[in-house]
Amino acid sequence: MVTFGFRVTPWEVEGVVDYDKLLEEFGASKISDELLERIKHLVGDVHTLLRRRIFYAHRDLDLILDDYEEGRGFFLYTGIAPSRSSMHLGHIVPFILTKWLQEKFKVNAYLMIPDEEKFLAKKTEDLRQVDELVDKTILDIIALGFDPDSTFIFKDREFIRNLYTAAVVVARRINYSLAKAVFGFNGETSIGLIFYPALQIVPTLFEKKRCLIPYGIDQDPYFRVQRDLAPKLGYFKTAGIMSIFIPGLEGVRSKMSASKPETAIFLSDSPEEAARKVMEAFTGGQPTVREQREKGGNPDICCVFQWFKILFEDVDEKLLERYHRCVSGELLCGECKVDLAERVKRFLREHQRKVLKAEEVKDKFLYTGKLAEKMWNWEFKY
Amino acid sequence: MVTFGFRVTPWEVEGVVDYDKLLEEFGASKISDELLERIKHLVGDVHTLLRRRIFYAHRDLDLILDDYEEGRGFFLYTGIAPSRSSMHLGHIVPFILTKWLQEKFKVNAYLMIPDEEKFLAKKTEDLRQVDELVDKTILDIIALGFDPDSTFIFKDREFIRNLYTAAVVVARRINYSLAKAVFGFNGETSIGLIFYPALQIVPTLFEKKRCLIPYGIDQDPYFRVQRDLAPKLGYFKTAGIMSIFIPGLEGVRSKMSASKPETAIFLSDSPEEAARKVMEAFTGGQPTVREQREKGGNPDICCVFQWFKILFEDVDEKLLERYHRCVSGELLCGECKVDLAERVKRFLREHQRKVLKAEEVKDKFLYTGKLAEKMWNWEFKY
Repeated sequence: MVTFGFRVTPWEVEGVVDYDKLLEEFGASKISDELLERIKHLVGDVHTLLRRRIFYAHRDLDLILDDYEEGRGFFLYTGIAPSRSSMHLGHIVPFILTKWLQEKFKVNAYLMIPDEEKFLAKKTEDLRQVDELVDKTILDIIALGFDPDSTFIFKDREFIRNLYTAAVVVARRINYSLAKAVFGFNGETSIGLIFYPALQIVPTLFEKKRCLIPYGIDQDPYFRVQRDLAPKLGYFKTAGIMSIFIPGLEGVRSKMSASKPETAIFLSDSPEEAARKVMEAFTGGQPTVREQREKGGNPDICCVFQWFKILFEDVDEKLLERYHRCVSGELLCGECKVDLAERVKRFLREHQRKVLKAEEVKDKFLYTGKLAEKMWNWEFKY
Repeated sequence: MVTFGFRVTPWEVEGVVDYDKLLEEFGASKISDELLERIKHLVGDVHTLLRRRIFYAHRDLDLILDDYEEGRGFFLYTGIAPSRSSMHLGHIVPFILTKWLQEKFKVNAYLMIPDEEKFLAKKTEDLRQVDELVDKTILDIIALGFDPDSTFIFKDREFIRNLYTAAVVVARRINYSLAKAVFGFNGETSIGLIFYPALQIVPTLFEKKRCLIPYGIDQDPYFRVQRDLAPKLGYFKTAGIMSIFIPGLEGVRSKMSASKPETAIFLSDSPEEAARKVMEAFTGGQPTVREQREKGGNPDICCVFQWFKILFEDVDEKLLERYHRCVSGELLCGECKVDLAERVKRFLREHQRKVLKAEEVKDKFLYTGKLAEKMWNWEFKY
């Protein structure tokens, strides 16, 4: 738990986040140009999410690249806990990077669906509400293009028999004082949520290789605990690449949040609904057209620009051009929003089509694919 | 957690226990003569463990008998957590009563083997040590004579998929403050042990009937928490019958303890080894034969007499006769110990023979018996 005017735990982000302070506190490093050069050298290119430092920090990414170069390999892990709504654009960011890494490095990816966490964290009142979202969430993930034979998607409550022994071994080594300090637990915290970190750590032990986890920086506490424990259990400290909080539509300092539907574009929104939200997004524009033409806009505080940067403009030159046209007053917010709305609509139409196809291959990811089948026979060695 | 000069939690019993104070603190009642009369009326007799108040207290036993009389029925639940040694005579006491209740009332019995609890409670260093004991423990239980089609024996780690959803629902309603107050948790407690009470509560929800649990009074905290929760989940508050701490061989105020092997007769002890331990037990005898003849012995503080009372003398008249022969100085400790040693040897020989037979029917209790099969398909409704 971090507290200097802001507070970051996996369940709460409050105040304005100072990313440099977070790194200092969490003991992680910025992703350097050299690291990105190494990735480019190894696999031919660098994903925009890395190039633009949406994923801005890491731990042991250099060791992951060593492991890859020297033939020891590594594996990927990320996840999402369903609560009250389907995934939004902010949620898919780590999955998009994970999918890209899987494709480029040809490694296994483990995708956890903790279908108890949000219920235990009291973010939803009814476990059935979670159940209704789980299938939808899995289809949304599959639609992002993961490989069915090297990806295993698992729901905690269904896969618990394979997870539990490892969780017990992990849990024994985490005492309440530590959990309280790291996760900000208190007397009101349910005993289920107190145990939960042990479960989230288990997938880092699925292989005797180094694990690379793309995640939002708010998830960092889990993996700092993992790094303390893993060597004592004969496993690797997990590596990670951490993203900034993905902004919502109400300001770049707001996090896109499922609990505030107007700040978020959901994968289940109709393209028209999503376009409407874009048209109402907070921008860095001036109050009047005249002022905009004279003074120019401010893309640095503009949600619309941020969304081009994160997901909707792959070409760096075009993004830069948009930036300059905004700053110079040439580009008006209305036009810019229409551009984004179009791309969001196209993306959602395409995504929703892929979701329909995902149904056909879902069983491979959960049960019958090469990796899935192997994992249903996996037992933790202790 | 109880603390007036003594302290009782499921993991620790310290100081001299005042059973009346415990009842007052725990809010349970003594088992009355009227209740025992009702049992006798319903099933024809009353087990010595009840008659002699080894099981001395209860909650809602009267409601259990109402449920039985009025055709609603009930079910039984008890368990044992393996740690560092096989079961000892103290451990089998609740199982003996459970088996008797099953036989007399023709009801289902659920027997839990929490093969993670002692590891999480740091009573054993190595989970493999627990694993080695689990099968032996199950065979010892089966050897006590349970019915294979109405008894389900389950190991937490193996049965966790069926337990976990219910545990999550239970755990959400227990916050850390409550768990700390009831179980005496502190900063050193592992997050696994903090979650564990949720699991121990789950079997009380296996049927939509009232559950009757025979248990040592140190396990009471779990079931007080259950009684707070169950009605909110649409289930019955569990009923219970609680035993005193079963004394060891070093004095009636000592608890028979697996961690002090000299105080305990293990089911795996050779009959000769057990006899030797009996011959060295603490008695209420006088220092010399002459004094014993003159002043008589004190059966009330004598471990040997207590063990006749608990398990090794079914006939009340004979127990009473032994009492008076001791008090009058007629019976010397040596003779009395030889008598007990003989009975213990006979019991162990017989038990160890039954354990060998138990192997043949084990699968019925775990997987293939009527109740076991049903339970592997059981899902918690929420």
